[in-house]
Amino acid sequence: MSTQQIIEKLTEIGKGLIKQLELQKNPHLEIPERSLNNVYFDEKTGIIKLGDKKQHRYYLNMSQAKKFMQTLLVASKIKWLLEEDKPSLSIRQLYYLLKHTIPGSKENTFDTQDETDPIVEDVEVMLDVLRENLRLIATPNGVLAGEMIVEDKTGDILDYTKMGSAGGAIPPIVEDEYFHIKEINVDYVLVIEKYAVWNVLNQQKFWKKNKCLILTGKGQPARAERRLLHRLAYEFNLPIYVFTDMDPWGYYIYSVYKQGSINLAFFSEKAGTPKAKFVGFQTKDVKQFDMPSSSFIKMKDVDYKRIKEMKKYAWFQNKEWQNELKTLEKLGFKIEQDALVSKSIEFTADTYLPWKIENKDFLP
Amino acid sequence: MSTQQIIEKLTEIGKGLIKQLELQKNPHLEIPERSLNNVYFDEKTGIIKLGDKKQHRYYLNMSQAKKFMQTLLVASKIKWLLEEDKPSLSIRQLYYLLKHTIPGSKENTFDTQDETDPIVEDVEVMLDVLRENLRLIATPNGVLAGEMIVEDKTGDILDYTKMGSAGGAIPPIVEDEYFHIKEINVDYVLVIEKYAVWNVLNQQKFWKKNKCLILTGKGQPARAERRLLHRLAYEFNLPIYVFTDMDPWGYYIYSVYKQGSINLAFFSEKAGTPKAKFVGFQTKDVKQFDMPSSSFIKMKDVDYKRIKEMKKYAWFQNKEWQNELKTLEKLGFKIEQDALVSKSIEFTADTYLPWKIENKDFLP
Repeated sequence: MSTQQIIEKLTEIGKGLIKQLELQKNPHLEIPERSLNNVYFDEKTGIIKLGDKKQHRYYLNMSQAKKFMQTLLVASKIKWLLEEDKPSLSIRQLYYLLKHTIPGSKENTFDTQDETDPIVEDVEVMLDVLRENLRLIATPNGVLAGEMIVEDKTGDILDYTKMGSAGGAIPPIVEDEYFHIKEINVDYVLVIEKYAVWNVLNQQKFWKKNKCLILTGKGQPARAERRLLHRLAYEFNLPIYVFTDMDPWGYYIYSVYKQGSINLAFFSEKAGTPKAKFVGFQTKDVKQFDMPSSSFIKMKDVDYKRIKEMKKYAWFQNKEWQNELKTLEKLGFKIEQDALVSKSIEFTADTYLPWKIENKDFLP
Repeated sequence: MSTQQIIEKLTEIGKGLIKQLELQKNPHLEIPERSLNNVYFDEKTGIIKLGDKKQHRYYLNMSQAKKFMQTLLVASKIKWLLEEDKPSLSIRQLYYLLKHTIPGSKENTFDTQDETDPIVEDVEVMLDVLRENLRLIATPNGVLAGEMIVEDKTGDILDYTKMGSAGGAIPPIVEDEYFHIKEINVDYVLVIEKYAVWNVLNQQKFWKKNKCLILTGKGQPARAERRLLHRLAYEFNLPIYVFTDMDPWGYYIYSVYKQGSINLAFFSEKAGTPKAKFVGFQTKDVKQFDMPSSSFIKMKDVDYKRIKEMKKYAWFQNKEWQNELKTLEKLGFKIEQDALVSKSIEFTADTYLPWKIENKDFLP
């Protein structure tokens, strides 16, 4: 949805409330529920989603009046930000922008950010757009390199083959209106859990030799990295391969890119990448690539506990992942992707990844 | 020191040990001590430094033999990395590269990274160069924008006026051999604690209107950001202004950029920027800029405790900072730099910063 369309939708919501007033009805908003009992894993699309349940937020209702007022304050401030073409802000900055004492009272519009954050999410689901479309940002962390040319909202043309040792920083908003991908000439996108591993692949120009984009979210990805990956998968139909540690934490990071997460179900719908494949490191690779025991790290209670939890997640129910998790548990040790240098500094780029990708040796 | 010079110095150290052997002396290394009793705040340079104490690490010494062997393993691996022009690695990757079982024994060269990390630091101080000169990296987090043109080790030319909404990512190694600053046309460098605030200033092209570089380390800065700032201050003689929250944590971040930190005394010598000035936010600015009470955050025990600790640090002993810390304590509330949007979204860029900088309204 374009900024113009969002402004129109917000205007309509406002007009709807005035109409309700004119008809002497109790004005209310209809907002999709974000509570956990309205979140499910959709097997068909392979993504964590919000269900159909809706809540009604009334003006003339003792327990809802304040929240109703707060929702309108957030919505109208967002409309103003978009209409005035203001810079994008963090949700903390939005909170400060909205917080004030209501004239003639000692009441604040909002007392803490705990009050604005859920309402920002309400406005997102009400409009069916991401907060990034409303110019509200989270701090991005990722970098990427490869044959892609982007026209940024600033007018700058960004060439991700010419970003030096640092790679190109991922901006906080990667929606088309802000980050227009003009050209992309790669066969796939390789997502790398850790910066150190990305850094070596970047220096080896892995992206050039293998005609791919290499991207890292530096551990748990932020919103922008996930959303960009989604766009690359859907709009450009690119295969997505995710390369993590061989441990429950790495496997979970993969699942966040792929299916999303329960806590951010609405975001997951729009940022998940169900067709992503797991390119490793897998338990069976230990033997296959003859990993030295110096790369093994004994698992601790916290690792075993995490495996147990993950075995129960709906999106880890397929045979392959159940097997992988069980084998990891039995194995009793984990291997970090950094440890592949134990074979050689070139092993990851020259042997491991090309073999895995050529032979499509993935987990689903 | 150039890579070539480092290789030569490492070769000399090795030759020195062989000579000691030939003379039937007990081979040993002389390594500057990194322990806290060899760290001091140098009032003259305004920087946290290592003292002159040295330790001797002997081969024929039951308690030192293993460490002696480990030191040579680290030093010779680094020499190999530099000679072979290998990619830069994290210190974790170096650990994996070095760890193996010694043939004919059950002993490992290293068992955990806790054993390699201090030895990497020993090699740094022994050579009097940073680990970055040895191609060992820490993950960078910062971004920057402004009139600067860099020739990267990859050959790419990086123009920081054309990096779009994301700004230019700071690479892990910013030494001249890797990150050659070809042109820089700014009056000062503005360091901003938080990404959200940097992001707004970047969108407002603050760097263009005010002919400066704007840089954020996203909270506590990583090594690369500190080292880059040091280079900008020393090699290009640029004024450095640091803009943080009005709270002990923000003040401390300022001091890390300026004087360094006790734990990384050796790094602080080479990455501190003693001439940096604090551009706010200060307690006196609350009145001066008529900050609304909605921007005040009541301080908690942990804040008061931190203020008490900081009052004792040698580098906060000047009158101005002692006063500032006392006033903050009395005030009882803190203000985040994000909260300046309470005045208006344009306030920081159009009023606050230009006024402070024009009037040199700094803390030392």
